[in-house]
Amino acid sequence: MSEKQVPLVVIKRLPRYYRYLGELLRNNITRISSTELSEKMGVTASQIRQDLNYFGGFGQQGYGYNVEMLYNRITSILGLDRGHKTVIIGAGNLGRALANYGGFANRGYNIVGLFDVDPALKGTFIADAPVMMYDELKSFVEKEKPDIAILSVPKNSVRKVADDMVKMGIKAFLNFAYVDLEVPDDVVVENVHLSDSMMTLSYRMASKAGE
Amino acid sequence: MSEKQVPLVVIKRLPRYYRYLGELLRNNITRISSTELSEKMGVTASQIRQDLNYFGGFGQQGYGYNVEMLYNRITSILGLDRGHKTVIIGAGNLGRALANYGGFANRGYNIVGLFDVDPALKGTFIADAPVMMYDELKSFVEKEKPDIAILSVPKNSVRKVADDMVKMGIKAFLNFAYVDLEVPDDVVVENVHLSDSMMTLSYRMASKAGE
Repeated sequence: MSEKQVPLVVIKRLPRYYRYLGELLRNNITRISSTELSEKMGVTASQIRQDLNYFGGFGQQGYGYNVEMLYNRITSILGLDRGHKTVIIGAGNLGRALANYGGFANRGYNIVGLFDVDPALKGTFIADAPVMMYDELKSFVEKEKPDIAILSVPKNSVRKVADDMVKMGIKAFLNFAYVDLEVPDDVVVENVHLSDSMMTLSYRMASKAGE
Repeated sequence: MSEKQVPLVVIKRLPRYYRYLGELLRNNITRISSTELSEKMGVTASQIRQDLNYFGGFGQQGYGYNVEMLYNRITSILGLDRGHKTVIIGAGNLGRALANYGGFANRGYNIVGLFDVDPALKGTFIADAPVMMYDELKSFVEKEKPDIAILSVPKNSVRKVADDMVKMGIKAFLNFAYVDLEVPDDVVVENVHLSDSMMTLSYRMASKAGE
């Protein structure tokens, strides 16, 4: 079965499955029916069966899903068991918040360094990761070969930083700047537009008010 | 035309239209065809016509879209012209980054205060907004009546904070904690799961590697 046919909308739901199954595991729940899982997640049971079928049929009639197997399988599908060396570009408040954010480290994203242009930050550490200067990045990348760059730089510099880093061979970006990046086909970019969420919220408030 | 029938997936695309149109306006481009807009946005022209038709037909045969009208209409649909009093709960790195984030203020989200439990922060200011103590929140909400609460508190406290604030009458939350909140039907929550983006990126990297 080719996983390439999995619709993006299903992929986008996998992190939620991952979170719920992780919670179940921590509560020592070893199996769960699609009905129970659906109640917990607020989607229909048939949706859940359909989603999980994309990745092979793990459910068993009359037994349900083996939580640990499903969790491990989704972990592997999401590539969370691979360990990713990650650099953060921009060590301002957002960069610092991200470096301190437990959610990344727990999922195999090891922050190996932060880079900034502010000389005052040189030689400091954030959450055990060293802060280096942007002009040291190229030689760092050659030596350490990070897999992922998190971009938390100002809007005006993000295109240049991404171009620089594509040339250095970085193939994956998590971009927090308010700019869509253009990159070659073999590079993946996941944009996190914080204010898009804010706008969606605002829209939903406006709709509610008009009800 | 009821806007309630607009699919969520279309609503989720509106912030992107808003961003692109804003960029065009700043470059003094006054009109654009759906073909040009589609090239710029990387979606099909027919998709764009379909999306925008949900909000009334603004395109004119042989002329295209009036950028400013479309921008203003989307601003209004998104409720960005209303002005929202916003509080940030949790003044750690993430809360500070959000308070400093220009994208919010530019969209009518006025940060009127931050709240934390760390007494060392009491009386300080972040991006012109005062930091107050969490036990001052109730009286602040009664007096200032904020519309939106941004939750950047640790995972373990977010459910209690949300419950407290629902009781205080807050109807809209932007939640950055790694926990799905259960709230009454008249309350809207937009969850921002930073690590979900990280997981989606990881999945896309894993898929690429298998190509």
